[in-house]
Amino acid sequence: MKAKVYVTLKPSVLDPQGKAIHHSVESLGFGQITDVRQGKYFEIALDKNLPEAEAKATAEQIAKDVLANPVIEDYRVEIIK
Amino acid sequence: MKAKVYVTLKPSVLDPQGKAIHHSVESLGFGQITDVRQGKYFEIALDKNLPEAEAKATAEQIAKDVLANPVIEDYRVEIIK
Repeated sequence: MKAKVYVTLKPSVLDPQGKAIHHSVESLGFGQITDVRQGKYFEIALDKNLPEAEAKATAEQIAKDVLANPVIEDYRVEIIK
Repeated sequence: MKAKVYVTLKPSVLDPQGKAIHHSVESLGFGQITDVRQGKYFEIALDKNLPEAEAKATAEQIAKDVLANPVIEDYRVEIIK
């Protein structure tokens, strides 16, 4: 079983890395872009005998404790069989 | 319109950052994890008058040229209205 974790900066937090990418992309001639924000993405492989609810709880706990900083970041967990 | 771009290391490429996370997570007591891989995630906001096909093509081009290194990374683009 696999969990996908998406970590993004909260909308109120400035994203200088995203701004830099936006700037590069614009100077390369892509004019239709209005904003770019960068986040992180994790794939966690879990023991396949784990029940889905428990896998989800484990992945949520890992996302909260290790992968994201809840002060400035949001996270989203998706379980894939 | 929004494009989500997921960039992951190709499966054959070693991921030391993912291994470090795996190790930390294990030492925190999460024993059911078999592997962790880290990737990148981008949200690109596009001009809302752009047709969907063109938005997809633009996002694919940006993913290929700027966000991913196609030698060692795979990317996936999703368009959200």
